[in-house]
Amino acid sequence: MSGLYLDDLTPGDAWHGTPFEIEEADVVRFAREYDAQPMHIDTEAAAVGRFGGLIASGWHVAALVMRDFIANNPFGDTPLLGIGIDELRWLRPVRPGDILTARREIVAVQRSSSKPVGTVTLRTTVTNQHGETVLSMNTLMQFPARPA
Amino acid sequence: MSGLYLDDLTPGDAWHGTPFEIEEADVVRFAREYDAQPMHIDTEAAAVGRFGGLIASGWHVAALVMRDFIANNPFGDTPLLGIGIDELRWLRPVRPGDILTARREIVAVQRSSSKPVGTVTLRTTVTNQHGETVLSMNTLMQFPARPA
Repeated sequence: MSGLYLDDLTPGDAWHGTPFEIEEADVVRFAREYDAQPMHIDTEAAAVGRFGGLIASGWHVAALVMRDFIANNPFGDTPLLGIGIDELRWLRPVRPGDILTARREIVAVQRSSSKPVGTVTLRTTVTNQHGETVLSMNTLMQFPARPA
Repeated sequence: MSGLYLDDLTPGDAWHGTPFEIEEADVVRFAREYDAQPMHIDTEAAAVGRFGGLIASGWHVAALVMRDFIANNPFGDTPLLGIGIDELRWLRPVRPGDILTARREIVAVQRSSSKPVGTVTLRTTVTNQHGETVLSMNTLMQFPARPA
């Protein structure tokens, strides 16, 4: 395996993902399948609604952030094995045409006392083209430790 | 608007969603787009991997749980406006052929002291056909209060 181990990670390590644009057709396609509310799928209803236009489903934004995580392949062949998410906040609407950039920082590395694995806590913040944070969350991942 | 207001919700209110089956083609399709790891998209690699077969992306499971939430339309025309998620845990692998059922319970209703809105905390637990919990999370939603 040519991937990183728990031992290779240090709290404070941080990196940016690749900026990605939100496409209207994708907003509607995702939401029709998983989150079919007028604010996500109906341009006309959304235009006169509280957000003044279509906004992306929060789950769509989260999925796109995952795609960017994978695309940047930060840990080599080590699988990104999610245990859970804490403090996910959808802070601002995400609209078609927005360009989002994720910043990821390792905030904790905890080694199991009994097994060659551990837990990594990653803080992700996602900002739009205006520098506004639109999403933040803490991801817990299971991570292998280097074999003895 | 023919939807529920904050005033209509009481902690302890609980209901089940509709059981839904995980389809292999959907597992692969979602993951190819958003979470392209071998355990989610490559049947042969997954078969000899740690899970002994394909498993669904955790984000896919979360999106399907959202779809079921919408389909059951528990609050009428009131939009499901997510503020965030706490304590999301992917507790067990979800595999093609699994049948999942969500249970939702209102655990807190907090009214704003200054505006006619509030926050509803919903606890969701999702079990498979063996009665095992595969996902749990707390969803925070913004909810309108009844006009005076």
